[in-house]
Amino acid sequence: MDRVLTGDRPTGPLHIGHYVGSLANRVAMQDKYEQFVMVADVQALTDNYEYPQRIRSAVLDVLLDYLAVGIDPKKTTIFIQSCVPEIPELTMYYLNLVTVNRLGRNPTIKTEIKQKGFGESVPAGFLVYPVNQAADITIFKARYVPVGEDQLPLIEQANEIVRSFNRIYNTDLMLEAQGVISATARLPGVDGKAKMSKSLGNTIYLSDPAETVAKKVMGMYTDPDHVRVSDPGKIEGNTVFTYLDAFDSDKEKVAELKAHYQQGGLGDVTVKKYLAGVLENLLGPIRQRRAEYAKDPGEVMAMAQRGTERARSVAAHTMDQVRAVMHINY
Amino acid sequence: MDRVLTGDRPTGPLHIGHYVGSLANRVAMQDKYEQFVMVADVQALTDNYEYPQRIRSAVLDVLLDYLAVGIDPKKTTIFIQSCVPEIPELTMYYLNLVTVNRLGRNPTIKTEIKQKGFGESVPAGFLVYPVNQAADITIFKARYVPVGEDQLPLIEQANEIVRSFNRIYNTDLMLEAQGVISATARLPGVDGKAKMSKSLGNTIYLSDPAETVAKKVMGMYTDPDHVRVSDPGKIEGNTVFTYLDAFDSDKEKVAELKAHYQQGGLGDVTVKKYLAGVLENLLGPIRQRRAEYAKDPGEVMAMAQRGTERARSVAAHTMDQVRAVMHINY
Repeated sequence: MDRVLTGDRPTGPLHIGHYVGSLANRVAMQDKYEQFVMVADVQALTDNYEYPQRIRSAVLDVLLDYLAVGIDPKKTTIFIQSCVPEIPELTMYYLNLVTVNRLGRNPTIKTEIKQKGFGESVPAGFLVYPVNQAADITIFKARYVPVGEDQLPLIEQANEIVRSFNRIYNTDLMLEAQGVISATARLPGVDGKAKMSKSLGNTIYLSDPAETVAKKVMGMYTDPDHVRVSDPGKIEGNTVFTYLDAFDSDKEKVAELKAHYQQGGLGDVTVKKYLAGVLENLLGPIRQRRAEYAKDPGEVMAMAQRGTERARSVAAHTMDQVRAVMHINY
Repeated sequence: MDRVLTGDRPTGPLHIGHYVGSLANRVAMQDKYEQFVMVADVQALTDNYEYPQRIRSAVLDVLLDYLAVGIDPKKTTIFIQSCVPEIPELTMYYLNLVTVNRLGRNPTIKTEIKQKGFGESVPAGFLVYPVNQAADITIFKARYVPVGEDQLPLIEQANEIVRSFNRIYNTDLMLEAQGVISATARLPGVDGKAKMSKSLGNTIYLSDPAETVAKKVMGMYTDPDHVRVSDPGKIEGNTVFTYLDAFDSDKEKVAELKAHYQQGGLGDVTVKKYLAGVLENLLGPIRQRRAEYAKDPGEVMAMAQRGTERARSVAAHTMDQVRAVMHINY
């Protein structure tokens, strides 16, 4: 079975944008692939190194979210990145195979450096995180890596390193990976902004209580020109309908609502109440399972421990092979 | 007992410049300090990554040189860097604490980048090797690091990282290290050039046969204006006398020879023969011990294995402490 590697930076609990963008897909993939899901705490520390406690507590949140949505530790290897020291070991050797200039030219990194406002003070760990990521992917010999479109240059960087490694050490040990872009478009924030983000406060978390979800839905961005119920309303850019497209499996009902809304006579409050119900159908069971798992954090961490042991044994095996082709197998 | 960390990049066998510059000192230090001597193969790979076999075979050469000069594995922990994966692990976290610009400004690195002719293609592994070195030093909590004067900026870089780490993670776990500069000036090559180096072909190896040493001494650079025996000769910049100063413990005899040479009437061949004798007194026993150890390379590697196990246990203990203060102790 081909291997798939995915993961998340643990910087907070996961939201419904993660659900449609990747989590739902992972639940489907775990039956078709040998799936590795990494809680990327080492990577999260590259731009949160001053706040390790924040990362620490987010690790449990992310694990609970995984279990709650149905990622099954019996089918999927869930592990914590910092507990696999073979990854930095391989990273060290990969760093020799890429130039500083090449790293600086990576479009993803260039954009992120701007976004994060590093200016002239880019931490070396941040510049080289794509190399660390190349090690993540290849140490598990992943064939497929689900990513956002903006992350494709990271896969390209990893594959460049793979080709250099195989050429220089005269081997076919390392595999090139394929980035798999989610079919689902990125879910906008409840304020209609392109991206859900903790800092913008426009997210709905998988762990939000029902009342919070309802409240966020009621405050959602719709069509600003749809003032009276009788007015015709716009669908494009109307977050409520974008969410219905993403979460309501009753496509006929959604089409009917859209037609009614465009024609006039359907109020925002009515559609929002309907959306709140749809979301609650999804989130209710997730929330309930999450609460169950949260009762025993020790067992959740023990589950991650078992996954990490499995991940380490795969990584250690690859490192044995790396040491052999690099003549450092003492 | 305070800890000392030293080591060598295994790029070939060690020469008599290493002996006066550091090896003799290590033999003396092993009784006064808890000494760690590292065969820095990971660091050697940063600019030899295309030639791993060269590094591999040099590791045994360096280990033999260590044993031959009297570094005693019962007193000194001799280990191989690539076998201590805790070092790259710590390096990864240190990389977050230093900016790319700061690394590029390091005078040692700037000089080396020029010397090695990297141009615009500096391997990322080379740029960050001072961070790797900071991990080497601090993971063993070394107080003292014997270095060449040109390497002091590396110690300064390591200490900067130590201060950042201790401040950010609110700890006093990491120790600042002190660079200890050798009292002995750098030994010139047999051609009189400032530096002994394999690529210049101007070295005398600890493992050179007696005839090779004698031949190299006979071809040594002296005073180009000292043509006839009866001519007065110059001492300054005369490699034969520089070597006598470094290797002959009979200081009176050396003073006498110098006076005679300056006055005229002492031929180069006579002084060179005398120097060859002095060197043979030093190198003969070293060569003999080296040949003994070389009979059983398996035992030499097993010795390094034992040292590496000891080094790993110290490094692993430090990493446990690092994980605790960084809240990644799962």
